[in-house]
Parts: sequence; C-alpha cells; structure tokens
Amino acid sequence: MSRTIFFVSDGTGITSETIGKSLLTQFEGIDFRLVRVPFIDNSEKAIAARERVNRAAERDRERPIVINTLVNPHLSEIMSDCNGLVLDVFHTFVKQIEAELGVRRSPRVGISHGMSNLQSYEQRMGATNYALKHDDGADVNYQEADVILVGVSRSGKTPTCLYLALHYGIKAGNYPLTPDDLDALKLPKMLTPYKRKLFGLTIEPERLRQIREIRRPNSRYADARQVQREVEEAESLFRIHGLPSLNTTYASVEEIASKVLVSLGLERSML
Amino acid sequence: MSRTIFFVSDGTGITSETIGKSLLTQFEGIDFRLVRVPFIDNSEKAIAARERVNRAAERDRERPIVINTLVNPHLSEIMSDCNGLVLDVFHTFVKQIEAELGVRRSPRVGISHGMSNLQSYEQRMGATNYALKHDDGADVNYQEADVILVGVSRSGKTPTCLYLALHYGIKAGNYPLTPDDLDALKLPKMLTPYKRKLFGLTIEPERLRQIREIRRPNSRYADARQVQREVEEAESLFRIHGLPSLNTTYASVEEIASKVLVSLGLERSML
Repeated sequence: MSRTIFFVSDGTGITSETIGKSLLTQFEGIDFRLVRVPFIDNSEKAIAARERVNRAAERDRERPIVINTLVNPHLSEIMSDCNGLVLDVFHTFVKQIEAELGVRRSPRVGISHGMSNLQSYEQRMGATNYALKHDDGADVNYQEADVILVGVSRSGKTPTCLYLALHYGIKAGNYPLTPDDLDALKLPKMLTPYKRKLFGLTIEPERLRQIREIRRPNSRYADARQVQREVEEAESLFRIHGLPSLNTTYASVEEIASKVLVSLGLERSML
Repeated sequence: MSRTIFFVSDGTGITSETIGKSLLTQFEGIDFRLVRVPFIDNSEKAIAARERVNRAAERDRERPIVINTLVNPHLSEIMSDCNGLVLDVFHTFVKQIEAELGVRRSPRVGISHGMSNLQSYEQRMGATNYALKHDDGADVNYQEADVILVGVSRSGKTPTCLYLALHYGIKAGNYPLTPDDLDALKLPKMLTPYKRKLFGLTIEPERLRQIREIRRPNSRYADARQVQREVEEAESLFRIHGLPSLNTTYASVEEIASKVLVSLGLERSML
C-alpha cells in the first residue's frame, strides 16, 4: 500500500513535517511518499500546490493526505478544495484557543520559525561559535559553558553540542575522555570545578565499534576489545562520580539534547 | 493577560512545542509562560504532569492550555483529566488518518525524533564533519559538497551549513567572499566548476554592521561604509553570475536552510 503525503506550509514546512511524521510513524507497513511544499504565501502558489495534490491523486488512484499548516485563511481554503484528505492543523486548534482566551487571532505567517531578533540571533551564534571553538576539548574555557558533555570519542558529543547551540543558544563544552582519564577512573582535573555542569554520554560498544570502523578501518581505535574497555571505564567513571548520563545508541541528537536540558535543569524553550 | 502553556510529550516535546508555538504566535498581547514537559512515558509521570497543570491553574486563576502530543492512549487519558484546556494533537488527527487508510494505528512512542539508524546517523555525522572541516573556506573539497554557500563575513553561512548537516545530512560548503573577489566582481576561480551548487547569502548592511560591531567594536570590519560596500558588491556578484540568493536579515536558520534546499532542488525530508 502506498500513499503520497503533502506537508503544505506558508513557511518552512518544518511544523507541518514534524506533526505529519509523528502521525505517520503510527502506521506500519504503508509506503508513504513524503512531499514538502513550503513557502506557499500567495494564491498562485496555493493553486499550484493544489494542482500537485490533484495530480498525485490521479497517479496514485488513492487520495493523498495533506498536512496543512497554512495560517492564512484564504490560502487554507484554496488548499482544502483539493482531492486529498486535508488535515487543517491551525484551523482545528486555533478555534479552541480563541474560545478559551476570548480573543480573535491575528493571522501572521511564518513567525514561528522566522523573524529572529538580534538578541536571540546573537545568543545562538555566540553558542555556536563556542561549540565550534571548543570542540574536542581544544582551547578550553569551561567557565563560560552552560553544560559540558563528557564521553569517549564518537559517543555523540559534537553533534549534541552543535544542536544545543543552534536550537537553544546553549553553550555546550565537550570533553573527550582520554585513555589516561579512563585508566585512572578520576575526574579530569580541569573538570572538577564544574562538576554540576557535567553530563556523560555513553554508547553500546558494538555500535561504537561500527562507527569507529567507518572512520578508521582495522585500527586499534576501532578494535572490539579496546572499544569495550573504554565504554566500561567511562560508565564506571560516571557512576563513581555521580554524573548524570545517557546511552546515545538509540537516541537521536534531538533526544540527547532534550535529556541533557531536563537533567541539568536547563530546560528552556527553543529560540 | 497571562497564561501558562504546557507542552506535554512522551518524547522530546519538540513536536508539541513546534505546534504550540505556531499557534501561540497568532495571539498578540498575551504573556504566555511556556513549560516543556517531555519524556512522559509512564502513568506516574503522567499523573505528576497533571498535578503541575493543576497547580498552575490554581496559581494563575486561569486554565492553562496543554498542547498534548502523548501517543499512548492511556497516558493521554490521564492528561485529559487535568484542569486545563487540553488540545490532543494525536487523537484528533490519527482518527482521521485511520479512517482514510482503513487501518488501525499501532501506538509507538518517540519514533519521530528517536531511533536514528546507523545509516542516517552516518549521513548526518559525515555532513557535520564536512561542515566543521570546511568552515570558512578552509581546507576545501568543494567537489564533495551538495551545496556551497557564498557570502560576506557574518551573513549566516556557518549556522546554515551546520543546520543543513545536522537536520538533513547535507554537505554544505562555505565560501567567504574576500575583498579581492568583491572588487573584481568575478566568481572565485575555485568555485567556477561548481556553479550549479552555489547559493548566495546577503543581509541588510545595518544589521550586518551591528553583528560585526559586537564582534570587533570600532573596527574597519564593522565600519558602516565598508559593510555597505561589501554587501552591494556581493549582491552585484550574485546578480551578474545568476546565483540564487537570499536576504538573511529577517530569516531564521531554519528558513534559510529550507530556502536553500528548495532553490537548489535538494528538497528532502528531515533525517
């Protein structure tokens, strides 16, 4: 069974795609073809998008499903005339919120992922530059960090630091555990003043072996016993020193970032 | 007027927060207090989350609004018993999709932002490493790039490259236009073989001046006339050589990334 899914949006389409994917993952065994249709911000584009849906309906001989996050009521109406099942996200919930607040909405487009102001831009960029500069424990200024991720090489520190910076404006430092740290089971000296900011990342040895093998085939770095030992020692170190930690093996970078925020009480909204 | 908004989720809460913020930006003049309540994956946590909502209701003397993306029907039911307005995102749309597809869903939690497989992990990481290694035109291998962002210093290239890598696994190169490139109005020689991959970023001179002033106060780099001239020359260069381009002044990194993808036909789903 196959279905075409359209994510239609006035803006980037990220909201539509996020909602849509969460819904579609609930249905197994169906071959969904995903089509993102972003930046639909005038009637001509809305009509063209409707045509795309109608062509897919003809070709598939099945109704496409349209995850519609258009904010403009006029454009949303154009879309709802298509030969697909249209799920109108805004319309559905905005009515309920209007009733609750006792006020009418003022339709504005693309605010949620747009129009960053200078302050939040600066916070994100400051954090991103921090992550870039302090990647892999080089040239460290941990004092400035909001959080310091600790783990063996390739446990997921770098992408998590970048994600925290880009999405939350959080300055995330990065400390790669060295064989010396691991053998001693001691918290590295440069980290001891910042114990409350530390968060450990770990990973299943077999997965880590695969990842390292791709980087440096047949190396000691990717050797199964070496990897196993590093992971065990890192986990012991986290346990002994009471660091909160997370196994990243089955976690996406979004999940790791969220859990770090919750665990260290840094919970904050996306910028 | 003030309201507390809860984003309640089995997973990271990103879906809930994304939907919720898109809705709330439609309402002006209300002071929303945003609370993310992620990783609600058992009854105890759901009951505790419900308590938080109820406490806020008492404190505010106004019903909180709950953007509920809980997938588990049992947990969602617990939540819907709270003293808030509960907008049940899954339940609302999943029913319609079930009817359309003629199959029942199989509730699974946290799939949308979780469970990255090795292949998509590798693609993201490969792209992230590429972005880190090739930032600011250093040590360049443009052959490998999916896209090359071109612009003056601080026009938004670096965060966009990182975003494209982390979210889409796209290898984005980065070419900072030098005064020599700009004076000559010529496409830099190292870019000419890759013209189809080029995308220009520009920015309003006054905003760029502000950004640079924060970096290097009272410098020639942040001088109003210098900035104005660089931007004008960069825009001429894009025009003369027919490069697609975008003004990043009022765009978020998500928007810039989306427009780059659409413009270069790289449109693809989030990994």
